[in-house]
Amino acid sequence: MDTTTKKTIILFSGDFDRAMAAFIIANGAAAMGDDVTMFFTFWGLNLLRKTEKVQTKDKKSTLQAMFGKMMPKGTGHLGLSKMNFAGAGAPMMKKVMKDAGAMSLEDLVASAQEQGVKFIACTLSMDILGFKEEELIDGLEFAGVASYLGEADEANVNLFI
Amino acid sequence: MDTTTKKTIILFSGDFDRAMAAFIIANGAAAMGDDVTMFFTFWGLNLLRKTEKVQTKDKKSTLQAMFGKMMPKGTGHLGLSKMNFAGAGAPMMKKVMKDAGAMSLEDLVASAQEQGVKFIACTLSMDILGFKEEELIDGLEFAGVASYLGEADEANVNLFI
Amino acid sequence: MDTTTKKTIILFSGDFDRAMAAFIIANGAAAMGDDVTMFFTFWGLNLLRKTEKVQTKDKKSTLQAMFGKMMPKGTGHLGLSKMNFAGAGAPMMKKVMKDAGAMSLEDLVASAQEQGVKFIACTLSMDILGFKEEELIDGLEFAGVASYLGEADEANVNLFI
Repeated sequence: MDTTTKKTIILFSGDFDRAMAAFIIANGAAAMGDDVTMFFTFWGLNLLRKTEKVQTKDKKSTLQAMFGKMMPKGTGHLGLSKMNFAGAGAPMMKKVMKDAGAMSLEDLVASAQEQGVKFIACTLSMDILGFKEEELIDGLEFAGVASYLGEADEANVNLFI
Repeated sequence: MDTTTKKTIILFSGDFDRAMAAFIIANGAAAMGDDVTMFFTFWGLNLLRKTEKVQTKDKKSTLQAMFGKMMPKGTGHLGLSKMNFAGAGAPMMKKVMKDAGAMSLEDLVASAQEQGVKFIACTLSMDILGFKEEELIDGLEFAGVASYLGEADEANVNLFI
Repeated sequence: MDTTTKKTIILFSGDFDRAMAAFIIANGAAAMGDDVTMFFTFWGLNLLRKTEKVQTKDKKSTLQAMFGKMMPKGTGHLGLSKMNFAGAGAPMMKKVMKDAGAMSLEDLVASAQEQGVKFIACTLSMDILGFKEEELIDGLEFAGVASYLGEADEANVNLFI
Protein backbone atom coordinates (compact mmCIF):
# COMPACT_ATOMS: atom_id res chain seq x y z
CA MET A 1 0.00 0.00 0.00
CA ASP A 2 1.20 3.47 -0.86
CA THR A 3 2.02 5.95 1.84
CA THR A 4 1.25 8.87 -0.45
CA THR A 5 -2.25 10.20 -0.54
CA LYS A 6 -1.93 12.42 -3.57
CA LYS A 7 -4.72 12.26 -6.12
CA THR A 8 -4.99 13.43 -9.71
CA ILE A 9 -8.10 13.87 -11.82
CA ILE A 10 -8.11 14.57 -15.53
CA LEU A 11 -11.34 16.40 -16.27
CA PHE A 12 -11.79 15.80 -19.98
CA SER A 13 -15.57 16.04 -19.95
CA GLY A 14 -17.52 19.27 -20.03
CA ASP A 15 -20.73 17.59 -18.86
CA PHE A 16 -22.32 19.03 -15.75
CA ASP A 17 -22.80 15.64 -14.09
CA ARG A 18 -19.28 14.41 -14.75
CA ALA A 19 -17.83 17.73 -13.56
CA MET A 20 -19.88 17.38 -10.37
CA ALA A 21 -18.42 13.92 -9.77
CA ALA A 22 -14.89 15.20 -10.36
CA PHE A 23 -15.26 18.11 -7.96
CA ILE A 24 -16.98 16.05 -5.25
CA ILE A 25 -14.05 13.62 -5.31
CA ALA A 26 -11.48 16.44 -5.41
CA ASN A 27 -13.08 18.27 -2.50
CA GLY A 28 -13.51 15.08 -0.52
CA ALA A 29 -9.87 14.15 -0.95
CA ALA A 30 -8.68 17.66 -0.11
CA ALA A 31 -10.85 17.66 3.01
CA MET A 32 -9.12 14.42 4.07
CA GLY A 33 -5.74 16.12 3.74
CA ASP A 34 -4.72 14.79 0.35
CA ASP A 35 -2.83 16.77 -2.26
CA VAL A 36 -5.11 16.99 -5.28
CA THR A 37 -4.31 18.03 -8.82
CA MET A 38 -7.00 18.53 -11.45
CA PHE A 39 -5.90 18.63 -15.06
CA PHE A 40 -8.48 20.28 -17.33
CA THR A 41 -8.34 19.25 -20.97
CA PHE A 42 -10.59 19.42 -24.05
CA TRP A 43 -14.23 20.07 -23.02
CA GLY A 44 -13.18 20.24 -19.38
CA LEU A 45 -11.52 23.57 -20.16
CA ASN A 46 -14.98 25.09 -20.63
CA LEU A 47 -15.43 25.06 -16.85
CA LEU A 48 -12.47 27.40 -16.49
CA ARG A 49 -13.67 30.00 -18.97
CA LYS A 50 -14.64 33.40 -17.63
CA THR A 51 -18.30 34.09 -18.20
CA GLU A 52 -17.71 37.61 -19.50
CA LYS A 53 -16.40 38.26 -23.00
CA VAL A 54 -12.64 38.88 -22.97
CA GLN A 55 -10.84 40.75 -25.72
CA THR A 56 -7.82 38.57 -26.49
CA LYS A 57 -4.48 39.98 -27.61
CA ASP A 58 -3.82 37.20 -30.09
CA LYS A 59 -6.36 36.64 -32.80
CA LYS A 60 -8.29 33.39 -33.06
CA SER A 61 -8.98 31.57 -36.29
CA THR A 62 -12.53 31.59 -37.60
CA LEU A 63 -13.03 28.00 -36.50
CA GLN A 64 -11.59 28.67 -33.05
CA ALA A 65 -13.89 31.66 -32.66
CA MET A 66 -16.80 29.47 -33.72
CA PHE A 67 -15.91 26.68 -31.27
CA GLY A 68 -15.51 29.34 -28.59
CA LYS A 69 -18.94 30.76 -29.26
CA MET A 70 -20.71 27.43 -29.30
CA MET A 71 -19.15 26.01 -26.17
CA PRO A 72 -20.31 26.96 -22.66
CA LYS A 73 -18.41 29.55 -20.67
CA GLY A 74 -17.85 28.53 -17.08
CA THR A 75 -19.92 26.20 -14.99
CA GLY A 76 -23.30 27.83 -15.50
CA HIS A 77 -24.39 26.43 -18.83
CA LEU A 78 -23.06 22.88 -18.94
CA GLY A 79 -25.35 20.12 -20.17
CA LEU A 80 -25.97 16.67 -18.74
CA SER A 81 -24.32 13.62 -20.31
CA LYS A 82 -27.72 11.88 -20.14
CA MET A 83 -31.31 13.11 -19.97
CA ASN A 84 -30.22 16.54 -21.11
CA PHE A 85 -33.64 17.24 -22.70
CA ALA A 86 -32.22 19.92 -25.00
CA GLY A 87 -30.75 21.76 -22.04
CA ALA A 88 -33.63 21.38 -19.58
CA GLY A 89 -31.98 18.47 -17.78
CA ALA A 90 -29.20 20.44 -16.09
CA PRO A 91 -31.50 23.03 -14.46
CA MET A 92 -33.71 20.17 -13.26
CA MET A 93 -30.65 18.41 -11.85
CA LYS A 94 -29.56 21.61 -10.13
CA LYS A 95 -33.00 21.95 -8.58
CA VAL A 96 -32.98 18.43 -7.08
CA MET A 97 -29.41 19.02 -5.92
CA LYS A 98 -30.40 22.23 -4.18
CA ASP A 99 -33.45 20.59 -2.62
CA ALA A 100 -31.18 17.83 -1.30
CA GLY A 101 -28.86 20.41 0.24
CA ALA A 102 -25.98 19.42 -2.02
CA MET A 103 -23.28 21.96 -2.87
CA SER A 104 -23.58 23.64 -6.24
CA LEU A 105 -20.91 23.13 -8.86
CA GLU A 106 -19.88 26.77 -8.45
CA ASP A 107 -19.43 26.26 -4.70
CA LEU A 108 -17.50 23.04 -5.29
CA VAL A 109 -15.10 24.81 -7.67
CA ALA A 110 -14.58 27.66 -5.20
CA SER A 111 -14.15 25.23 -2.32
CA ALA A 112 -11.58 23.21 -4.27
CA GLN A 113 -9.54 26.34 -4.93
CA GLU A 114 -9.82 27.40 -1.29
CA GLN A 115 -8.66 23.97 -0.16
CA GLY A 116 -5.58 24.27 -2.36
CA VAL A 117 -6.54 21.85 -5.12
CA LYS A 118 -4.13 22.55 -7.97
CA PHE A 119 -5.86 23.43 -11.26
CA ILE A 120 -3.79 22.82 -14.39
CA ALA A 121 -5.14 23.95 -17.76
CA CYS A 122 -3.88 21.78 -20.62
CA THR A 123 -1.89 24.06 -22.92
CA LEU A 124 -2.19 21.77 -25.94
CA SER A 125 -5.98 21.84 -25.72
CA MET A 126 -5.83 25.62 -25.25
CA ASP A 127 -3.72 25.97 -28.40
CA ILE A 128 -6.13 23.80 -30.36
CA LEU A 129 -9.34 25.42 -29.14
CA GLY A 130 -7.83 28.90 -29.21
CA PHE A 131 -8.35 29.64 -25.51
CA LYS A 132 -6.02 32.36 -24.18
CA GLU A 133 -4.84 32.59 -20.56
CA GLU A 134 -6.73 35.86 -20.06
CA GLU A 135 -10.00 34.13 -20.99
CA LEU A 136 -9.69 31.64 -18.14
CA ILE A 137 -10.30 32.13 -14.43
CA ASP A 138 -7.53 33.12 -12.03
CA GLY A 139 -5.38 30.74 -10.04
CA LEU A 140 -4.51 28.30 -12.81
CA GLU A 141 -1.26 26.70 -13.82
CA PHE A 142 -0.66 26.14 -17.50
CA ALA A 143 1.09 22.94 -18.55
CA GLY A 144 1.05 19.91 -20.81
CA VAL A 145 0.92 16.15 -20.57
CA ALA A 146 4.45 15.82 -19.15
CA SER A 147 3.40 17.89 -16.20
CA TYR A 148 0.30 15.74 -15.70
CA LEU A 149 2.40 12.57 -15.80
CA GLY A 150 4.81 13.98 -13.25
CA GLU A 151 1.91 14.63 -10.88
CA ALA A 152 0.35 11.23 -11.55
CA ASP A 153 3.64 9.47 -10.78
CA GLU A 154 3.45 10.92 -7.27
CA ALA A 155 -0.20 10.00 -6.75
CA ASN A 156 -1.90 6.78 -5.70
CA VAL A 157 -5.28 7.49 -7.31
CA ASN A 158 -5.49 8.82 -10.87
CA LEU A 159 -8.86 9.18 -12.52
CA PHE A 160 -9.92 10.16 -16.04
CA ILE A 161 -13.36 11.73 -16.03
CA MET B 1 5.24 -2.21 -7.42
CA ASP B 2 2.40 -2.53 -4.95
CA THR B 3 1.83 -5.72 -3.07
CA THR B 4 -1.87 -5.02 -2.70
CA THR B 5 -4.20 -6.27 -5.37
CA LYS B 6 -7.28 -4.39 -4.35
CA LYS B 7 -9.25 -2.69 -7.10
CA THR B 8 -11.93 -0.01 -7.07
CA ILE B 9 -14.29 0.99 -9.83
CA ILE B 10 -16.55 4.02 -9.77
CA LEU B 11 -19.48 3.22 -12.01
CA PHE B 12 -20.82 6.66 -12.88
CA SER B 13 -22.28 5.68 -16.23
CA GLY B 14 -25.64 4.03 -16.70
CA ASP B 15 -24.82 2.92 -20.25
CA PHE B 16 -25.14 -0.78 -20.94
CA ASP B 17 -21.77 -1.03 -22.68
CA ARG B 18 -19.85 0.85 -19.99
CA ALA B 19 -21.56 -1.18 -17.26
CA MET B 20 -20.53 -4.36 -19.11
CA ALA B 21 -16.92 -3.20 -19.14
CA ALA B 22 -17.04 -2.37 -15.43
CA PHE B 23 -18.47 -5.75 -14.46
CA ILE B 24 -16.15 -7.73 -16.71
CA ILE B 25 -13.17 -6.06 -15.02
CA ALA B 26 -14.67 -6.50 -11.54
CA ASN B 27 -15.42 -10.18 -12.10
CA GLY B 28 -12.02 -10.79 -13.68
CA ALA B 29 -10.21 -9.21 -10.76
CA ALA B 30 -12.34 -11.07 -8.20
CA ALA B 31 -11.65 -14.35 -10.01
CA MET B 32 -7.93 -13.63 -9.68
CA GLY B 33 -8.33 -13.25 -5.93
CA ASP B 34 -8.42 -9.45 -5.72
CA ASP B 35 -10.58 -7.47 -3.34
CA VAL B 36 -12.90 -5.38 -5.50
CA THR B 37 -15.10 -2.45 -4.54
CA MET B 38 -17.59 -0.93 -6.93
CA PHE B 39 -18.93 2.51 -6.09
CA PHE B 40 -22.19 3.29 -7.89
CA THR B 41 -22.94 6.96 -8.39
CA PHE B 42 -25.24 9.13 -10.53
CA TRP B 43 -26.54 7.12 -13.53
CA GLY B 44 -24.69 4.05 -12.32
CA LEU B 45 -27.22 3.81 -9.49
CA ASN B 46 -29.86 2.85 -12.05
CA LEU B 47 -28.28 -0.60 -12.27
CA LEU B 48 -29.04 -1.18 -8.61
CA ARG B 49 -32.72 -0.27 -8.77
CA LYS B 50 -35.24 -3.03 -8.21
CA THR B 51 -37.31 -3.60 -11.31
CA GLU B 52 -40.59 -3.71 -9.43
CA LYS B 53 -42.29 -0.57 -8.15
CA VAL B 54 -41.49 0.01 -4.48
CA GLN B 55 -43.68 2.12 -2.21
CA THR B 56 -41.21 4.35 -0.40
CA LYS B 57 -41.74 5.55 3.15
CA ASP B 58 -40.36 9.01 2.49
CA LYS B 59 -41.96 11.07 -0.19
CA LYS B 60 -40.06 12.16 -3.27
CA SER B 61 -40.23 15.59 -4.81
CA THR B 62 -42.06 15.94 -8.11
CA LEU B 63 -38.77 16.27 -9.97
CA GLN B 64 -37.27 13.26 -8.20
CA ALA B 65 -40.34 11.20 -9.06
CA MET B 66 -40.00 12.33 -12.66
CA PHE B 67 -36.31 11.46 -12.84
CA GLY B 68 -37.13 8.12 -11.26
CA LYS B 69 -39.79 7.38 -13.85
CA MET B 70 -37.66 8.33 -16.83
CA MET B 71 -34.54 6.44 -15.80
CA PRO B 72 -34.13 2.69 -16.27
CA LYS B 73 -34.74 0.34 -13.36
CA GLY B 74 -32.06 -2.31 -13.10
CA THR B 75 -29.90 -3.73 -15.83
CA GLY B 76 -32.63 -4.68 -18.26
CA HIS B 77 -33.35 -1.42 -20.00
CA LEU B 78 -30.03 0.38 -20.23
CA GLY B 79 -29.07 2.04 -23.49
CA LEU B 80 -25.79 1.98 -25.40
CA SER B 81 -23.42 4.95 -25.22
CA LYS B 82 -23.06 4.72 -29.03
CA MET B 83 -25.23 3.26 -31.78
CA ASN B 84 -28.19 3.20 -29.45
CA PHE B 85 -30.67 3.53 -32.34
CA ALA B 86 -33.43 4.87 -30.11
CA GLY B 87 -33.12 1.85 -27.86
CA ALA B 88 -32.67 -0.86 -30.52
CA GLY B 89 -28.90 -0.94 -30.10
CA ALA B 90 -28.81 -2.60 -26.68
CA PRO B 91 -30.99 -5.59 -27.62
CA MET B 92 -28.84 -6.04 -30.74
CA MET B 93 -25.71 -5.90 -28.59
CA LYS B 94 -27.21 -8.45 -26.19
CA LYS B 95 -27.97 -10.75 -29.13
CA VAL B 96 -24.38 -10.70 -30.44
CA MET B 97 -23.13 -11.15 -26.88
CA LYS B 98 -25.33 -14.19 -26.39
CA ASP B 99 -24.30 -15.63 -29.75
CA ALA B 100 -20.66 -15.19 -28.72
CA GLY B 101 -21.30 -17.07 -25.48
CA ALA B 102 -20.53 -13.99 -23.37
CA MET B 103 -22.08 -13.61 -19.95
CA SER B 104 -25.09 -11.34 -19.73
CA LEU B 105 -24.94 -8.19 -17.63
CA GLU B 106 -27.43 -9.77 -15.19
CA ASP B 107 -25.15 -12.80 -14.78
CA LEU B 108 -22.11 -10.56 -14.35
CA VAL B 109 -23.83 -8.60 -11.58
CA ALA B 110 -24.88 -11.79 -9.82
CA SER B 111 -21.44 -13.31 -10.25
CA ALA B 112 -19.78 -10.19 -8.85
CA GLN B 113 -21.97 -10.36 -5.75
CA GLU B 114 -21.29 -14.11 -5.36
CA GLN B 115 -17.56 -13.49 -5.63
CA GLY B 116 -17.75 -10.96 -2.84
CA VAL B 117 -17.33 -7.77 -4.83
CA LYS B 118 -18.37 -4.96 -2.50
CA PHE B 119 -21.16 -2.77 -3.91
CA ILE B 120 -21.37 0.73 -2.44
CA ALA B 121 -24.28 2.98 -3.39
CA CYS B 122 -23.35 6.67 -3.26
CA THR B 123 -25.60 8.27 -0.66
CA LEU B 124 -25.17 11.80 -2.01
CA SER B 125 -26.44 10.70 -5.43
CA MET B 126 -29.28 8.83 -3.75
CA ASP B 127 -30.27 11.99 -1.85
CA ILE B 128 -30.19 14.03 -5.03
CA LEU B 129 -32.06 11.57 -7.23
CA GLY B 130 -34.45 10.60 -4.45
CA PHE B 131 -33.56 6.90 -4.43
CA LYS B 132 -34.41 5.18 -1.13
CA GLU B 133 -32.58 2.13 0.25
CA GLU B 134 -35.67 -0.04 -0.14
CA GLU B 135 -35.79 0.71 -3.86
CA LEU B 136 -32.33 -0.75 -4.45
CA ILE B 137 -31.28 -4.39 -4.61
CA ASP B 138 -30.07 -6.28 -1.55
CA GLY B 139 -26.48 -6.64 -0.45
CA LEU B 140 -25.42 -3.01 -0.79
CA GLU B 141 -23.46 -0.74 1.48
CA PHE B 142 -24.45 2.91 1.60
CA ALA B 143 -21.70 5.49 1.86
CA GLY B 144 -20.23 8.68 0.46
CA VAL B 145 -17.06 9.92 -1.18
CA ALA B 146 -14.95 9.61 2.00
CA SER B 147 -15.68 5.90 2.04
CA TYR B 148 -14.74 5.61 -1.64
CA LEU B 149 -11.46 7.43 -1.01
CA GLY B 150 -10.66 5.14 1.90
CA GLU B 151 -11.10 2.13 -0.35
CA ALA B 152 -9.13 3.70 -3.18
CA ASP B 153 -6.22 4.45 -0.85
CA GLU B 154 -5.90 0.72 -0.25
CA ALA B 155 -6.14 -0.22 -3.92
CA ASN B 156 -3.58 -0.28 -6.72
CA VAL B 157 -6.04 0.11 -9.60
CA ASN B 158 -8.80 2.73 -9.45
CA LEU B 159 -11.00 3.29 -12.47
CA PHE B 160 -13.74 5.81 -13.23
CA ILE B 161 -16.21 4.37 -15.74
CA MET C 1 5.55 6.52 -3.91
CA ASP C 2 5.96 3.80 -6.51
CA THR C 3 9.24 3.22 -8.24
CA THR C 4 7.54 1.75 -11.30
CA THR C 5 6.58 4.07 -14.10
CA LYS C 6 4.42 1.70 -16.08
CA LYS C 7 1.11 3.05 -17.35
CA THR C 8 -2.00 1.35 -18.71
CA ILE C 9 -4.87 2.88 -20.62
CA ILE C 10 -8.11 1.13 -21.44
CA LEU C 11 -9.45 2.76 -24.56
CA PHE C 12 -13.13 1.89 -24.44
CA SER C 13 -14.33 4.92 -26.35
CA GLY C 14 -14.32 5.22 -30.12
CA ASP C 15 -14.72 8.99 -30.02
CA PHE C 16 -12.10 11.00 -31.84
CA ASP C 17 -11.52 13.40 -28.96
CA ARG C 18 -11.22 10.71 -26.30
CA ALA C 19 -8.88 8.70 -28.53
CA MET C 20 -6.74 11.82 -28.99
CA ALA C 21 -6.49 12.22 -25.21
CA ALA C 22 -5.54 8.56 -24.79
CA PHE C 23 -2.79 8.70 -27.41
CA ILE C 24 -1.39 12.02 -26.21
CA ILE C 25 -1.00 10.53 -22.73
CA ALA C 26 0.42 7.26 -24.08
CA ASN C 27 2.95 9.05 -26.28
CA GLY C 28 3.89 11.45 -23.52
CA ALA C 29 4.51 8.63 -21.07
CA ALA C 30 6.49 6.61 -23.61
CA ALA C 31 8.61 9.67 -24.42
CA MET C 32 9.41 9.94 -20.71
CA GLY C 33 10.66 6.35 -20.71
CA ASP C 34 7.59 4.64 -19.25
CA ASP C 35 6.30 1.26 -20.30
CA VAL C 36 2.81 1.85 -21.69
CA THR C 37 0.08 -0.66 -22.44
CA MET C 38 -3.11 0.30 -24.25
CA PHE C 39 -6.01 -2.11 -24.02
CA PHE C 40 -8.58 -1.55 -26.78
CA THR C 41 -12.08 -2.72 -26.01
CA PHE C 42 -15.61 -2.18 -27.34
CA TRP C 43 -15.75 0.98 -29.50
CA GLY C 44 -12.03 1.52 -29.00
CA LEU C 45 -11.43 -1.48 -31.26
CA ASN C 46 -12.68 0.58 -34.19
CA LEU C 47 -9.41 2.50 -34.17
CA LEU C 48 -7.52 -0.73 -34.88
CA ARG C 49 -9.61 -1.76 -37.89
CA LYS C 50 -7.93 -1.76 -41.28
CA THR C 51 -9.56 0.75 -43.57
CA GLU C 52 -9.73 -1.64 -46.52
CA LYS C 53 -12.32 -4.40 -46.70
CA VAL C 54 -10.87 -7.72 -45.54
CA GLN C 55 -12.36 -11.06 -46.55
CA THR C 56 -12.54 -13.00 -43.30
CA LYS C 57 -12.14 -16.77 -43.11
CA ASP C 58 -14.81 -17.19 -40.47
CA LYS C 59 -18.26 -15.96 -41.27
CA LYS C 60 -19.89 -13.23 -39.25
CA SER C 61 -23.46 -13.25 -38.11
CA THR C 62 -25.86 -10.85 -39.81
CA LEU C 63 -25.86 -8.59 -36.76
CA GLN C 64 -22.07 -8.64 -36.52
CA ALA C 65 -21.80 -7.76 -40.21
CA MET C 66 -24.24 -4.92 -39.64
CA PHE C 67 -22.36 -3.58 -36.63
CA GLY C 68 -19.16 -3.88 -38.65
CA LYS C 69 -20.62 -1.86 -41.51
CA MET C 70 -22.01 0.89 -39.36
CA MET C 71 -18.94 1.44 -37.21
CA PRO C 72 -15.92 3.42 -38.37
CA LYS C 73 -12.87 1.64 -39.74
CA GLY C 74 -9.63 3.03 -38.36
CA THR C 75 -8.96 6.50 -37.11
CA GLY C 76 -10.20 8.44 -40.12
CA HIS C 77 -13.93 8.54 -39.54
CA LEU C 78 -14.39 8.79 -35.80
CA GLY C 79 -16.90 11.29 -34.43
CA LEU C 80 -16.60 13.71 -31.56
CA SER C 81 -18.17 12.93 -28.19
CA LYS C 82 -19.59 16.49 -28.16
CA MET C 83 -20.34 19.05 -30.87
CA ASN C 84 -20.24 16.33 -33.48
CA PHE C 85 -22.68 18.20 -35.76
CA ALA C 86 -23.68 15.05 -37.63
CA GLY C 87 -20.08 14.30 -38.45
CA ALA C 88 -18.90 17.83 -39.27
CA GLY C 89 -17.36 18.35 -35.83
CA ALA C 90 -14.42 15.98 -36.23
CA PRO C 91 -13.11 17.51 -39.49
CA MET C 92 -13.42 20.95 -37.89
CA MET C 93 -11.51 19.70 -34.84
CA LYS C 94 -8.83 18.23 -37.12
CA LYS C 95 -8.50 21.57 -38.90
CA VAL C 96 -7.92 23.54 -35.67
CA MET C 97 -5.52 20.83 -34.51
CA LYS C 98 -3.54 21.09 -37.73
CA ASP C 99 -3.53 24.88 -37.56
CA ALA C 100 -2.18 24.62 -34.00
CA GLY C 101 0.60 22.33 -35.17
CA ALA C 102 -0.72 19.42 -33.10
CA MET C 103 -0.01 15.85 -34.19
CA SER C 104 -2.81 14.08 -36.02
CA LEU C 105 -4.41 11.00 -34.48
CA GLU C 106 -2.84 8.90 -37.24
CA ASP C 107 0.62 10.24 -36.37
CA LEU C 108 -0.01 9.67 -32.67
CA VAL C 109 -0.96 6.03 -33.28
CA ALA C 110 2.12 5.47 -35.47
CA SER C 111 4.33 7.24 -32.94
CA ALA C 112 2.96 5.14 -30.09
CA GLN C 113 3.75 1.96 -31.99
CA GLU C 114 7.25 3.22 -32.87
CA GLN C 115 7.87 4.08 -29.23
CA GLY C 116 6.98 0.54 -28.21
CA VAL C 117 3.58 1.16 -26.65
CA LYS C 118 1.96 -2.25 -26.34
CA PHE C 119 -1.43 -2.49 -28.09
CA ILE C 120 -3.73 -5.23 -26.77
CA ALA C 121 -7.00 -5.93 -28.57
CA CYS C 122 -9.67 -7.27 -26.21
CA THR C 123 -10.57 -10.72 -27.48
CA LEU C 124 -13.96 -10.82 -25.74
CA SER C 125 -15.02 -7.63 -27.50
CA MET C 126 -13.69 -9.05 -30.79
CA ASP C 127 -15.77 -12.20 -30.30
CA ILE C 128 -18.87 -10.14 -29.57
CA LEU C 129 -18.47 -7.64 -32.40
CA GLY C 130 -17.23 -10.29 -34.82
CA PHE C 131 -13.86 -8.65 -35.50
CA LYS C 132 -11.23 -11.11 -36.80
CA GLU C 133 -7.49 -10.71 -36.28
CA GLU C 134 -6.91 -10.23 -40.01
CA GLU C 135 -9.25 -7.22 -40.01
CA LEU C 136 -7.13 -5.35 -37.49
CA ILE C 137 -3.83 -3.54 -38.02
CA ASP C 138 -0.48 -5.24 -37.49
CA GLY C 139 1.51 -5.28 -34.31
CA LEU C 140 -1.27 -6.15 -31.89
CA GLU C 141 -1.45 -8.62 -29.05
CA PHE C 142 -4.74 -10.38 -28.47
CA ALA C 143 -5.83 -11.00 -24.91
CA GLY C 144 -8.59 -10.68 -22.34
CA VAL C 145 -9.27 -9.00 -19.05
CA ALA C 146 -6.86 -11.21 -17.07
CA SER C 147 -4.04 -9.96 -19.24
CA TYR C 148 -5.13 -6.35 -18.69
CA LEU C 149 -5.24 -6.87 -14.94
CA GLY C 150 -1.77 -8.40 -14.97
CA GLU C 151 -0.45 -5.30 -16.73
CA ALA C 152 -2.36 -2.94 -14.43
CA ASP C 153 -0.95 -4.66 -11.34
CA GLU C 154 2.53 -3.65 -12.53
CA ALA C 155 1.55 -0.04 -13.33
CA ASN C 156 1.21 3.03 -11.16
CA VAL C 157 -1.23 4.89 -13.41
CA ASN C 158 -4.27 3.11 -14.86
CA LEU C 159 -6.84 5.09 -16.81
CA PHE C 160 -10.18 4.14 -18.34
CA ILE C 161 -10.98 6.39 -21.29
